[in-house]
Amino acid sequence: MVLKVYGPAYASPKRVLVCLVEKEIEYEVVPVDLLKGEHKSPEYLKLQPFGSVPLLQDGDYTLFESRAMIRYYSEKYKSQGTDLLGKTVEERGLVEQWLDVEAIQFHPPIYELTLQIMFNPLLGLPSDEKSIKENEEKLAKVLDIYEERLSKSQYLAGDFFSLADLSHLPFTDYLVGPIKKEYLIRDRKHVSAWWDDISNRPSWQKIRQL
Amino acid sequence: MVLKVYGPAYASPKRVLVCLVEKEIEYEVVPVDLLKGEHKSPEYLKLQPFGSVPLLQDGDYTLFESRAMIRYYSEKYKSQGTDLLGKTVEERGLVEQWLDVEAIQFHPPIYELTLQIMFNPLLGLPSDEKSIKENEEKLAKVLDIYEERLSKSQYLAGDFFSLADLSHLPFTDYLVGPIKKEYLIRDRKHVSAWWDDISNRPSWQKIRQL
Repeated sequence: MVLKVYGPAYASPKRVLVCLVEKEIEYEVVPVDLLKGEHKSPEYLKLQPFGSVPLLQDGDYTLFESRAMIRYYSEKYKSQGTDLLGKTVEERGLVEQWLDVEAIQFHPPIYELTLQIMFNPLLGLPSDEKSIKENEEKLAKVLDIYEERLSKSQYLAGDFFSLADLSHLPFTDYLVGPIKKEYLIRDRKHVSAWWDDISNRPSWQKIRQL
Repeated sequence: MVLKVYGPAYASPKRVLVCLVEKEIEYEVVPVDLLKGEHKSPEYLKLQPFGSVPLLQDGDYTLFESRAMIRYYSEKYKSQGTDLLGKTVEERGLVEQWLDVEAIQFHPPIYELTLQIMFNPLLGLPSDEKSIKENEEKLAKVLDIYEERLSKSQYLAGDFFSLADLSHLPFTDYLVGPIKKEYLIRDRKHVSAWWDDISNRPSWQKIRQL
């Protein structure tokens, strides 16, 4: 039975899908309409108690949290497709470090910008300009640290593409597109080159259009 | 050279120290006084650009982000001390899922309660009662999901103690202690039994006193 990823139209599930493409793993997608509240139905909550996407079913194995899914498939199929965890346990340590930086430092401000600028208008809610300003500033500070790091290595965890880079794709694609804050990337020479590199990978070019 | 963990008096570094004790790995601690701003000194920022604790130095290998450190040592010394990653790649997938739940769902509200109730008074700042109420409610909802999960398995990732449980120790210790919100744990039968179990491990009894 082919594994199923729920919610392919949204950014966090795309983090998983782009990883599956890199790992050459077959999958099916199951649409979930967040605007209709399908992620809050009793059937869905039985499988994903936090009521968010993605949800993954692989036979009778169920996972939630997108970064757990990408770690699982990258480890299970280590030698298939692109190696996304580094070659040594020390390299994996650095992948884990920057993957946690993405989740803990980068994600909260970019997610807030996504909500305020992309989703609130769709839901007929006002955008909070103070929150936008604060989170834009927070994100800029994080990207200053990325700029310094990427002046010393080609990718975040070292000179190899990894989950740490991949994990940034979906929300940064929003940032340079519908959020209209591309300057945050383009004003930083090394971040800009890194973004061009990772976003032009065939895997992302395929998944971003879903 | 023995590895060094910076900031042993604080909660996030204790996440790492309790893991090192479980893994029977020797370490030294290097005090960092956050109230004096020692984490914002130029020397410190060279090693930890986000200016937070912990920071870890193991010879010339440097890591930041506490959950990356505990993953690294649990993998590197898989067969030494307590196995904290599960026996199979599927078990590790569930460890990763609940470790991400801790980082993404559990940590933000408990961290905000820590700031508002413990640290703001130390810094002479007022506590934001609205934020306390909101984050207490958020944390209660997360713990409702834990209660359901822990009614079906002894620990979060299954019937084995893992990084997913261990990662909760330092801030939950604040919650039942100085934050004075022990009721959030005690009002939930399975969460309460789980907390008694994990917090009474000799590793945590040793580290909590630092």
